[in-house]
Amino acid sequence: MTLSVAEAHELVVQTLVRCRTAHSNAVSVADALIAAERAGQVGHGLRRVPSYAGQALSGKVDGQAQASADQHKPGALMVDAGHGFAYPALALAMDWLPEAAKTQGIAVAGITRSHHAGVAGWFVERLAADGLVALMFANTPAAMAPWGGARPLFGTNPIAFGALIENAAPMVVDLSLSTVARGKIMAAAQKGEAIPGDWATDADGHPTTDPALALKGMMQPMGGAKGAALALMVEVLAAALVGANTGSEASDFFGAEGAPPGTGQLLLAIDPGAMGGSAGITRLAGLFQDNGDARLPGQRRQQIAARVDAEGIELDADLAKQIDALGR
Amino acid sequence: MTLSVAEAHELVVQTLVRCRTAHSNAVSVADALIAAERAGQVGHGLRRVPSYAGQALSGKVDGQAQASADQHKPGALMVDAGHGFAYPALALAMDWLPEAAKTQGIAVAGITRSHHAGVAGWFVERLAADGLVALMFANTPAAMAPWGGARPLFGTNPIAFGALIENAAPMVVDLSLSTVARGKIMAAAQKGEAIPGDWATDADGHPTTDPALALKGMMQPMGGAKGAALALMVEVLAAALVGANTGSEASDFFGAEGAPPGTGQLLLAIDPGAMGGSAGITRLAGLFQDNGDARLPGQRRQQIAARVDAEGIELDADLAKQIDALGR
Repeated sequence: MTLSVAEAHELVVQTLVRCRTAHSNAVSVADALIAAERAGQVGHGLRRVPSYAGQALSGKVDGQAQASADQHKPGALMVDAGHGFAYPALALAMDWLPEAAKTQGIAVAGITRSHHAGVAGWFVERLAADGLVALMFANTPAAMAPWGGARPLFGTNPIAFGALIENAAPMVVDLSLSTVARGKIMAAAQKGEAIPGDWATDADGHPTTDPALALKGMMQPMGGAKGAALALMVEVLAAALVGANTGSEASDFFGAEGAPPGTGQLLLAIDPGAMGGSAGITRLAGLFQDNGDARLPGQRRQQIAARVDAEGIELDADLAKQIDALGR
Repeated sequence: MTLSVAEAHELVVQTLVRCRTAHSNAVSVADALIAAERAGQVGHGLRRVPSYAGQALSGKVDGQAQASADQHKPGALMVDAGHGFAYPALALAMDWLPEAAKTQGIAVAGITRSHHAGVAGWFVERLAADGLVALMFANTPAAMAPWGGARPLFGTNPIAFGALIENAAPMVVDLSLSTVARGKIMAAAQKGEAIPGDWATDADGHPTTDPALALKGMMQPMGGAKGAALALMVEVLAAALVGANTGSEASDFFGAEGAPPGTGQLLLAIDPGAMGGSAGITRLAGLFQDNGDARLPGQRRQQIAARVDAEGIELDADLAKQIDALGR
C-alpha cells in the first residue's frame, strides 16, 4: 500500500501513542521517520516503527519522558532526553541553536541519555537552510574496535555537516565511520557472496571476507587507523563530553530488552556572518561544476523529497500488518 | 650537528630576522617549528626554514605582517594573518580561545589570508591541556579531487582533535585526509617500488600504482568517497567560512614564487564544564586499557618531547649550511 506523507505521519503517531508514548513525543518521532523517508534513507524511516514501539512498550525507551534543557553558558545547551526517544530532545536543541549561534557566533547543544538519532543530515540540513554552518556528531552502540584493538568500543558514529549555498540546495555531508553499513554485509550473507577485506573483522578482530563471520565480528573503520581515530573523536564529542554512555556501554537500538542505550549527540552551529560571510561557501560549491563527475553532496535531497511528497511512501503489507498489531 | 632546543629556536629566529621577518613573527615561527620537532613531526620542523625564509625574502610571505583580530560576536574571532606566516595569527587565536570558551561554553577562531599551519596537533594539545575539548581544521593547497572529479580541489586538509584526560597526557588526534602523506610516494619513487592502488591517481584521476605517475597526479582521500566528503567539510570550515583561498586557489607552501597561498584555519574550543563535565572523557580513555594493542592517540607525544629536550635536535650538515647562507 502507498500512504501519503500525512497519512504515514499519522500512522506513526497513532501507533506510538498506543504504545505508551506521549502524543508530543510521538509527533517528534513521526517527524523524524518521515524526514528519513523524504531523504531516501528508508532504513531510518517507517521500518523502525516496530522496533521503536517494542522498546516503548517494554520501557527500554521511556515514551513519556519529557526532554529538558539546561543552559549553563550563553553558547552551550545541555539537553537530557531522559531515556526517551532522541527526537524530542533533538527538537529542543534545534529550537535553541539558530538564535544562540547568531547571537554568540557559535553555539553547541549536547544531548545525553538519548537514543537512535536517525538521519543526522536532516538536522544539519535545516540549520544550513537557516543560514548556519552546522555539524552533528552521534554515537551509536559499539560495532568497531579502536585501531589495534580486540573488542568493540565505538559505534559507526555518524558525522554530518551542512552549509548554505546561495541559489542552491544546502550542502549536506552525512556519513558513518565504518567502511560500509552493516546492511551491506547482511545482503552479502543472504546472497552467499564474499565481502571485501576492509569491511569487517571476525570476533577476534582479524579481517575477514566471510560475511557470516563478519556478522559475528566487528565493522572496520573507513580509512583504517584514521577512521578509527575519527570514531574516537566522535565518541568524545557526542558521548563522553555530554555524559552519555560510550558505544561499549550502550545497549542496541533495536531490541526491546535490556537497559536504555543512553547514547549521546552533539550539534554545533556557526554563524557565517560572525566569520568571513557565506559568499566563500557558494564560491567553493561553484568549483564542483565541470570537474569530471564530481557532485556536491546534498543536491539530490530536495528531488527525493519532492518525489516522496508527490508519490507517497510505499508500506509493504508485512510491515503494515506488523505496525497495525502493535500495542493491541 | 646537534642543537639544544634553545639553540635551534634562536637559529630560526636569527635566520628569519635576516630574511625580512619581524622579530616577533620570527619568534612565533620558531615556537611552531621547535614544537614540530618536539612532536616528532620533523617534516614541519627545521627543514622548513629554507622554504619559509625564501618566501619571506621574495615577499610571497610578508614577514612584517601584523596579524590582527576582529571579534564580531562574543564567541567568534576572525584573525587576519595579512599574508604573513600563520603562526603569529594562530597565536592570537590561541590567546583568545581559552577564556572565550570558558565564558561562552564554546568559542571559534578563524584565520584567513594565512599560510602553512604546521602540526595541527600542537594547537589542540595546548587547548586540551587547558581543560578544553578542541578541534582544528586547516586547508592546504589542492592535492585531491572531489569524489568522481578530474581536477584537484582540496588539500590533504588536516583535522586535529584534543581532549584532557585526568592523570594522563591529553588525547590528541591529528590526521590528514589523504590515504598517506605525499612523502611516502616520494620514498617509493626513490626506491622504484610500486605503491598501493588507493594512495594516488595519475593526472587524469585514474588510480595508479606507479609512484612517478602519482607524483604528477593527485592524492586519494582516505576511505574513498567518505574521505573526500570530509575534505570538503574541512575546506568549508577552514577556508570558505573564513574567506580564505580554497585549495585550488592557493599557491604552494614551499616555493618562493607566486602569490601568497592565502589559506585558512579554524580552531574550536568547548568547555566540558558547560556540557557534561570531563569525567566521561577520562572514563572513555580508560576503556583503551586491555583492549588488544589499542593505543590512545597522543600518549607518546610527551615522551618524544622529553627525549628531544634531553638529546637536542639533529641538524644535518647540508641543512645547516643552507640555513647559514639564507639572507646573506
